[in-house]
Amino acid sequence: MKKIDVCLSPELIHLYDFKDRVVVVVDVLRATTCMVTALANGVRKIRAYKDLDACRSMRNHGYIIAGERGGQKVEDFDLGNSPLSYLDDAYLGEQLAVTTTNGTLAIDKSKHAHEVIIGALVNLDAVVDYLRSQDRDVLIFCAGWKGKVNLEDTLFAGGVVAKLQGDFESECDAPQIAQMVYDRAKDDIIGYLKNASHVKRLNGFDIGDDIQFCLTPNTYDIVPVLQGQDLVLKQQQLHI
Amino acid sequence: MKKIDVCLSPELIHLYDFKDRVVVVVDVLRATTCMVTALANGVRKIRAYKDLDACRSMRNHGYIIAGERGGQKVEDFDLGNSPLSYLDDAYLGEQLAVTTTNGTLAIDKSKHAHEVIIGALVNLDAVVDYLRSQDRDVLIFCAGWKGKVNLEDTLFAGGVVAKLQGDFESECDAPQIAQMVYDRAKDDIIGYLKNASHVKRLNGFDIGDDIQFCLTPNTYDIVPVLQGQDLVLKQQQLHI
Repeated sequence: MKKIDVCLSPELIHLYDFKDRVVVVVDVLRATTCMVTALANGVRKIRAYKDLDACRSMRNHGYIIAGERGGQKVEDFDLGNSPLSYLDDAYLGEQLAVTTTNGTLAIDKSKHAHEVIIGALVNLDAVVDYLRSQDRDVLIFCAGWKGKVNLEDTLFAGGVVAKLQGDFESECDAPQIAQMVYDRAKDDIIGYLKNASHVKRLNGFDIGDDIQFCLTPNTYDIVPVLQGQDLVLKQQQLHI
Repeated sequence: MKKIDVCLSPELIHLYDFKDRVVVVVDVLRATTCMVTALANGVRKIRAYKDLDACRSMRNHGYIIAGERGGQKVEDFDLGNSPLSYLDDAYLGEQLAVTTTNGTLAIDKSKHAHEVIIGALVNLDAVVDYLRSQDRDVLIFCAGWKGKVNLEDTLFAGGVVAKLQGDFESECDAPQIAQMVYDRAKDDIIGYLKNASHVKRLNGFDIGDDIQFCLTPNTYDIVPVLQGQDLVLKQQQLHI
């Protein structure tokens, strides 16, 4: 049977051997939700940067630049880290360069995987279907918050593990812990998450609509994949 | 209000500032269960060693030496890592030197805390009462398994957090994750834990009685504390 494991923080990723695996990077609030939303709304490709200046320099190459540090938009950037920016095909056909506190770091640390895909609650079931269709072991890589584990990414991981029971065998205990969190919270995700530290942190920025959007499952039926340096949709998922 | 946080793995401990806190080290299977059981059964003091040879050398200083690597007794040691060894005052008045895979490492990493105490399911409520009586913030430090998070230590942490609600405010998300695991499992701890990777690992060693003992809450009403290099009981808890 295929195997599934969960890495709850970037500080633990050195403990996992994932070079033959599909790695699912998740940063529900808000980096990977933005990526899924942008590609679902016609953005052509996304390049993720750890470094602020490297991201900024992409403006000179025709990219829209989006960046956040500590939950707030980088002042001179085109966009911050709100998935709502991309709705209604607002950046149809554009190329996007992004940098965020946790999510882009996790993508960078995953680059030696067999394949890197992007997960969020907004494409939870699409990720599950994709993983079921692949003949590969899986590692779900939670971006966390500055190295610590967080509730929303753990919840997503638990959802994937729960829905793949029967197809995948869990390794070690993190998948079971994540699944117990998901089982406990799944019927009232927003209620459980309102006490999450990241939600409290973001509440200070008056982005309740963002949070509601990020915590609503299955808005989109797509799975971004990393091809070379770019996050894209595979041919059959391309937006017309 | 006093604060409580949970560190789910020794690989994350550098993210926590605990010098003014009481740190509760937990390694349910089986290091801290052994320590609580030994002191509750009249062992006078326990010294914990990361290093096998340092532990072995204490035999020349009149110590009983107990050691485990990868779940198995170190061959030339007096004892392995079974809490049942200490029952019925088997080592009354003795001094014990111990080394284990995960638990003694966590104690070593905690040594700059205001105070280090030892927790396990066998003294869960005693730990809770002790923390409630102290005027200090708390960090629960899960020993995990070779750097990865594990279910049994997370469950213990969640039990402490759950029982201290109202007295302590949780920080970040790990306490909430641990509490969700505890809430889910508390009515059938052995049932939930039977799928834990460490239990499966130990099942290979035919120590079902050990596991049953380690997963049974509140056998003992004592709290070992680290004084200098030694784990001891405070005066009022001393075994007569």
